[in-house]
Amino acid sequence: MSFEWSCPAPLRDYDRITIGHGGGGLLTEDLIRHLFLPGFGAAAAEAGADDAAIVEVGGQRIAFSTDSYVVRPLFFPGGDIGRLAVHGTVNDLAMVGATPLALSTAFVLEEGVGLDMVARVATSMGEAATEAGVMLITGDTKVVDAGLADGMYITTAGIGVVPAGIDIGARLARPGDVVIVSGPIGRHGTAVLSVREGLEFGTEIESDCAPLNEMVATMIGTGADIHVLRDLTRGGLAAALCEIATEASVEITVDETSIPVPPAVEAACGFLGLDPIHVANEGTLVAFVHPDDAERVLATMHDHPHGADAVAIGEVSTERPGMVSARTALGSHRVITRPLLEQLPRIC
Amino acid sequence: MSFEWSCPAPLRDYDRITIGHGGGGLLTEDLIRHLFLPGFGAAAAEAGADDAAIVEVGGQRIAFSTDSYVVRPLFFPGGDIGRLAVHGTVNDLAMVGATPLALSTAFVLEEGVGLDMVARVATSMGEAATEAGVMLITGDTKVVDAGLADGMYITTAGIGVVPAGIDIGARLARPGDVVIVSGPIGRHGTAVLSVREGLEFGTEIESDCAPLNEMVATMIGTGADIHVLRDLTRGGLAAALCEIATEASVEITVDETSIPVPPAVEAACGFLGLDPIHVANEGTLVAFVHPDDAERVLATMHDHPHGADAVAIGEVSTERPGMVSARTALGSHRVITRPLLEQLPRIC
Repeated sequence: MSFEWSCPAPLRDYDRITIGHGGGGLLTEDLIRHLFLPGFGAAAAEAGADDAAIVEVGGQRIAFSTDSYVVRPLFFPGGDIGRLAVHGTVNDLAMVGATPLALSTAFVLEEGVGLDMVARVATSMGEAATEAGVMLITGDTKVVDAGLADGMYITTAGIGVVPAGIDIGARLARPGDVVIVSGPIGRHGTAVLSVREGLEFGTEIESDCAPLNEMVATMIGTGADIHVLRDLTRGGLAAALCEIATEASVEITVDETSIPVPPAVEAACGFLGLDPIHVANEGTLVAFVHPDDAERVLATMHDHPHGADAVAIGEVSTERPGMVSARTALGSHRVITRPLLEQLPRIC
Repeated sequence: MSFEWSCPAPLRDYDRITIGHGGGGLLTEDLIRHLFLPGFGAAAAEAGADDAAIVEVGGQRIAFSTDSYVVRPLFFPGGDIGRLAVHGTVNDLAMVGATPLALSTAFVLEEGVGLDMVARVATSMGEAATEAGVMLITGDTKVVDAGLADGMYITTAGIGVVPAGIDIGARLARPGDVVIVSGPIGRHGTAVLSVREGLEFGTEIESDCAPLNEMVATMIGTGADIHVLRDLTRGGLAAALCEIATEASVEITVDETSIPVPPAVEAACGFLGLDPIHVANEGTLVAFVHPDDAERVLATMHDHPHGADAVAIGEVSTERPGMVSARTALGSHRVITRPLLEQLPRIC
């Protein structure tokens, strides 16, 4: 069997999978655009830039999303692979405005892993699902030989319903929109890294891993004109803003000093040479909201535990489509770019 | 963090995951019943014995299913991991009578695997999806360190619509039902094993991997009273019949001589000490049909390439609920049991 390359552009000259191909950055996008989509051919739906796809079924819009979780270690401050697998997929559904209904759970278990560890993860998934108000309705279990996995990998998929009249997506960002971030950034990535590398940062940093669907429902419930929602996972705030700027062909400018970064995250990132805006979050989102509605949406978010520290950080304009920049404390501007690859591999 | 055992029965005294826990047999069932379901708690939907779960959304019944694929080797006669991942999930949806609409595709790739191999698999998935008439609409890619996977693992999930008036499930088998098998059994398992172990059986055996949704749609289209559909994956024909007998509390009796087993499969199984009724298939189903409709359903199946060799192999009665037995060529009966674990690990 021979394979004919059908991709119009080279995969940045790699001929093998590297860790960076799984980082959610430009290398992952290369893989999707130049390998998966040409391979899938006519069976591939138009690749949207949103966290969930939407299918119409008998007048209903069903949102559908999936993610595999390979985080190392399996347990970290503020969460574990099970909690992540449930909330990650719940959040992907919520980011297109859908009400999550049900998840599937597929496990690839490594031979030899303790049943007590699997049970802890299952319990955590049950608690996370109850917290998010979704059911775990179907699943699968496979086992691979000792050494051929890292304890366990979990893949969840989820379905939800998009309420009538709701249309939220990266392409819909509009000039004038206010950019709101729901809380402090950088916690998930630094929390995982702290336990993985055995680092201590003085204060323990906890992952922000949380279900955002309830808060999103209250935001939508205000009737505000919400154009984009995006959770700040792999690639962090920077990746989310760059994707939205590209997809909607708009310029996004944020005030660097207004971006909430917890001091412990700031210290850890300084120590590690990371920029908090590139670090993954698992319970934090950005919302792009019509300027007339921004105050109302912020007030609603402040009433919810996952949005208590929500703050407007910037705005959308038309000058340089695709450009994202930050106004610094000194009044200068720095360009924000999408990382080529994830700085922290196996973060989710 | 301590974990309190909440399971009412011991997990057959294992305290670690064994390869058998992923075999789809009694050990897998133990894991689901005594670990996952208690762990998931209130968030777990009632565990059905069917291949897909069904959720009602605004008057529509949406079928939802997932499977992870960890087959070794990735390519085998008649298929590959990509084709398997698409058709396996398509078939799970078809087995509850649903029309498959869309699949998600989640990849866990091993660092170092060749992009050409990933591209071959993606192309195969595209072809398989086109063949089945489904779209690949959302996905995810993760990469794990070299050595921590076996090339790649793929998890697909799928959604479909159950047409109004259709109710198909293991619990619905009824006394008098005719048991129909859609074709020769045992090909997938022996095909994979032949390449994995470097065995040669004279004739090359090809996997039966195929999408069954189109044939199922024509069967349903006859208006026949179809009570149960089940594809004969892990655990083969034996596991499917035992699960249905238990779930519906009925007795199932088959004629051993009527079960179609290709001579090459028979020879390979004899050599390997396997029973073809326990060997996995990936494009073969059993249907339980009202006796008045059996001839009509068989005729329809014969008109379809995936059912050309369909044949009635047995019937349902009430005498000994849960019992499955085979009438042998000598006129005696042998009891058919579900294997404790899969005889052939990593077959799908």
